[in-house]
Amino acid sequence: MTETPFAPQTDKTETEKGTTLRPKFGADGLMPAIVTDADSGEVLMLGYMNEGALARTIEEGEAWYWSRSRQEYWKKGATSGQIQQVVEMRTDCDQDAILLKVRVAGNGATCHVGYRSCFYRAVELGSPASAETKLSITQDRVYDPKEVYGKD
Amino acid sequence: MTETPFAPQTDKTETEKGTTLRPKFGADGLMPAIVTDADSGEVLMLGYMNEGALARTIEEGEAWYWSRSRQEYWKKGATSGQIQQVVEMRTDCDQDAILLKVRVAGNGATCHVGYRSCFYRAVELGSPASAETKLSITQDRVYDPKEVYGKD
Repeated sequence: MTETPFAPQTDKTETEKGTTLRPKFGADGLMPAIVTDADSGEVLMLGYMNEGALARTIEEGEAWYWSRSRQEYWKKGATSGQIQQVVEMRTDCDQDAILLKVRVAGNGATCHVGYRSCFYRAVELGSPASAETKLSITQDRVYDPKEVYGKD
Repeated sequence: MTETPFAPQTDKTETEKGTTLRPKFGADGLMPAIVTDADSGEVLMLGYMNEGALARTIEEGEAWYWSRSRQEYWKKGATSGQIQQVVEMRTDCDQDAILLKVRVAGNGATCHVGYRSCFYRAVELGSPASAETKLSITQDRVYDPKEVYGKD
């Protein structure tokens, strides 16, 4: 990005308590975006936005991300149909994270593995962390990725 | 960290669908951790964990982070009393993010500015993003930071 559309962070109090958006991106130019279901509140995924993805999302009201693996803009749902209509966007006190409350189109799922939420596994707690720390699956798969992506 | 306690990521299918914790930290050694209220589901904050913070949280069941500003371990609530008891921890398909469902001790709030959630401001949508993009405050302050931290 050669030019940011956003207001800069100048004063800590203004950033933390003010009413102007002053987003702070990391050294890699990205900011994490938490995505929740606007109706149930369930956390669906965590994506990353650069300035352009944040600007597109604000203007269009549908969620855009920056794909770190493909190094390109990624409109969630462009392939899968799982478009995210943004009901509300929030930022946090430091303005270095985004929260999206969305309604998911298509089959209504979010995770490319076939689950409603990417956070479908719980971590075993209460023992020292080790190479044996277990995950347990907390929800049923709701679709077959082969039918959406043409591959598993 | 000289030695990781965790299993490595070797195979994509095992990482995405397996039942062993194989956390992937970023180039900076950190992983984002989304924190929600275990009862209401409200998103409260986003913190960052390094290997040690994740290991401590798994073992103790209370949330530890790595403070990027202070470059030290940070037990949330050590100063404010806003300790986070972890009811459930999840990881996502790529195992590069954490979700904590917590009960907050002390005054029950999370944000150092005085709000229940750090995500207390909504971003105006539907117009091109600009230096004028506005935030609106969505909840009331629930405590005075001066009383907890001795300063505003």
